[in-house]
Amino acid sequence: MSFSVTILGSGSAVPTNSRFPTSQFIECNNRHILIDCGEGTQFQLRKFNVKIQSIQIILISHLHGDHFFGLPGLLSTMHLLGRDKGLKIIGPEGLEKCVRTQLEIGHNKLDFELEFVALEKNSNTCIYKDKVLEIHTFPLNHRIQTQGYCIKEVQPELNMRKELVAQESIPLEVIHQLKAGKDCLDSTGMFWKFKKYTLPPKSLLSYAYCSDTKYDEGICKYIMGSTLLYHEATFIEKDAGRAKLTFHSTAEEAAKIALKSQVKKLLMGHISARYIDSKQHLLEAKTIFDNVIFAEDGMSINLRDI
Amino acid sequence: MSFSVTILGSGSAVPTNSRFPTSQFIECNNRHILIDCGEGTQFQLRKFNVKIQSIQIILISHLHGDHFFGLPGLLSTMHLLGRDKGLKIIGPEGLEKCVRTQLEIGHNKLDFELEFVALEKNSNTCIYKDKVLEIHTFPLNHRIQTQGYCIKEVQPELNMRKELVAQESIPLEVIHQLKAGKDCLDSTGMFWKFKKYTLPPKSLLSYAYCSDTKYDEGICKYIMGSTLLYHEATFIEKDAGRAKLTFHSTAEEAAKIALKSQVKKLLMGHISARYIDSKQHLLEAKTIFDNVIFAEDGMSINLRDI
Repeated sequence: MSFSVTILGSGSAVPTNSRFPTSQFIECNNRHILIDCGEGTQFQLRKFNVKIQSIQIILISHLHGDHFFGLPGLLSTMHLLGRDKGLKIIGPEGLEKCVRTQLEIGHNKLDFELEFVALEKNSNTCIYKDKVLEIHTFPLNHRIQTQGYCIKEVQPELNMRKELVAQESIPLEVIHQLKAGKDCLDSTGMFWKFKKYTLPPKSLLSYAYCSDTKYDEGICKYIMGSTLLYHEATFIEKDAGRAKLTFHSTAEEAAKIALKSQVKKLLMGHISARYIDSKQHLLEAKTIFDNVIFAEDGMSINLRDI
Repeated sequence: MSFSVTILGSGSAVPTNSRFPTSQFIECNNRHILIDCGEGTQFQLRKFNVKIQSIQIILISHLHGDHFFGLPGLLSTMHLLGRDKGLKIIGPEGLEKCVRTQLEIGHNKLDFELEFVALEKNSNTCIYKDKVLEIHTFPLNHRIQTQGYCIKEVQPELNMRKELVAQESIPLEVIHQLKAGKDCLDSTGMFWKFKKYTLPPKSLLSYAYCSDTKYDEGICKYIMGSTLLYHEATFIEKDAGRAKLTFHSTAEEAAKIALKSQVKKLLMGHISARYIDSKQHLLEAKTIFDNVIFAEDGMSINLRDI
C-alpha cells in the first residue's frame, strides 16, 4: 500500500519558468486524487508521468484562478483521450457553473459524468470515505471561502494471531468482530477480546493540505498529528506585512502551525514569484520546525518514508 | 520596422510535452498582437521572452478550448503584474461571457479595461486599422464559427525624391498629396504626378492565419499573395478521412491552399498528438509547395527574411 504526494505546481498566482500554479497529485492506497488544478496542470501531469485517467477525485481549495483555471483543459483532454469513467469534483460553490460555462462555450461534450460536490462556507466534514481512505474538509482563513483537506488512511481489518486461531476454535462471526477491532460475546456467552487475538493495528498515515491561508491556529485541530502537512508559505518575514494584507502566510507562520499541530513533516509551497528561490523560507522555518522542505515542481514525497 | 511571428503553441487539442495548444505572438511595426490563447500561453510568453504587457490586441479564431482556455490566466497575470493599459479582444460571440464568468468566479477584478469585439458568423471585414497595419477577418470552414485573420502592413507616406524637391519649389499642400500617393492640381492649375516626385512605395508584408479549417478554396481570395500563410495541417494523407470528419486539413491540403493563394511561404501547424514529428507532413506538403516549414514551439519567423 502506498501513499505519495507529487507536486505539479509549487508557485503562486504569477507563474514562473520553474513553478506552475498550484496542483498536487495524491496516490493513496490505489486511490488517485488531484488537489487544486491551476493552469497547465494537464501539462505537468504528462511531464511527470502521472496517468491522467487514473484521477478519480479532484479537490479544489478555492476559486482563485491559480487554483482552478486548469480544470476545463484537463477535463477536455480526459475526454479526447477516451475517458468514460465518472469524475468527482469537490470544491466551493460556483465551481460547477464556471467549469460548465467554459465547457459549453468551448463546445466540449464530455463522454463521462462530472459529479460536482459544492462545499458550503466553513464546511468541516468528512466528504469521502471508502475502505482505504477518508477525506475531510475544513475551513482555512483566506480572502474568499477556502477549504483545506485532510486525506487519512482508514484502519484495514486487523490480522488475526494465527497461532491462537489454530489453538482455539474461534467461531467465524467472532473472527469478523475481532478483525474489526471489537470485543464480543459469542452465542455460548464466551467473551473474546480483540487485542488478545489480533496483531497490533498498523500506524495510519495522513496528509493535510492548507493553501491558501493566513496564519490561523484555529486550523490546528483539523490537522493535528498529520504525517505530512502542506502549508502555504507565500512570503518571508521581511514581507510579513504583505502576507497579512493578502491573507497569506510567511514561512515562519507555516512552521508555527506545523509545530502546534504536532505533524511529522512540513512541506511548504505557493512561493511568491518575487523570490528567486526558497532558501530564505527554509532558513526562517527551520528556526521553529526542523523537519521541513519546500515544494518544487516534480517533487514526489512518499509518506511511508517520513 | 519589423514584422515577426513567434510560435507559442504548435500542437492541437491534446497537448504534448513539446507542443502547447495554439497561440502565436505577432510583432508588426511596433504593434503587438496575440493570435489565439490556448492553455499555458502565459507560460510560453515568459519562456520565449515576450513582454506580456506589450500585447495590445488579442485575436481568437474560435471557441474550442485549445484556442482560448489560456485567456483568463493571462489576463489575471497581466493584472497582477500591474497592467493599467486597456486590451482589445476580438473573437466570435460568446467569448466575452466565458472570460468574464471565469474572471468573476475567480474574483479577479482587473485594473485595466477589456474591450471585446464580437464577430458575427462569416464576418469578412477590416476589424482594425491604424497608420502601420490593418487586420482583416474572414470565415474559415470548421465545425463551429471560426475566423481567419490577415495582418497587413499599410503603405507609409512615400518618400520624396530630394533632388526634385530642391530643384522645384513644391507647395507644402502638394507635398502632402504626393506623399500620400495622390496626383494633384495646385492652386495655379499646375498638375503634379506623385510617381515623378516620390520614391517607389516599399513592398508591403502580410501574414495570414488559418486555424482551424477543412480544405476550402473559398478562403484563397482572402489570403491571396500573403508573404506568410499559417495554415493548419493537423493530419497526414493516411488520415485524410479523419481530417474530413473533424473539419481539419492534411498537410497536402494546406500546401494546395498555399499554391492557389500564391503566398510566398507556408507555415504549417496544429499537428495532431498522434504523430511523433512533422517529417511526413513536410514530405507530403513539399510535393505541392516547396517553401514550407512546420511550426515548433519557440520558433520565430521574420517576414522581412522571406
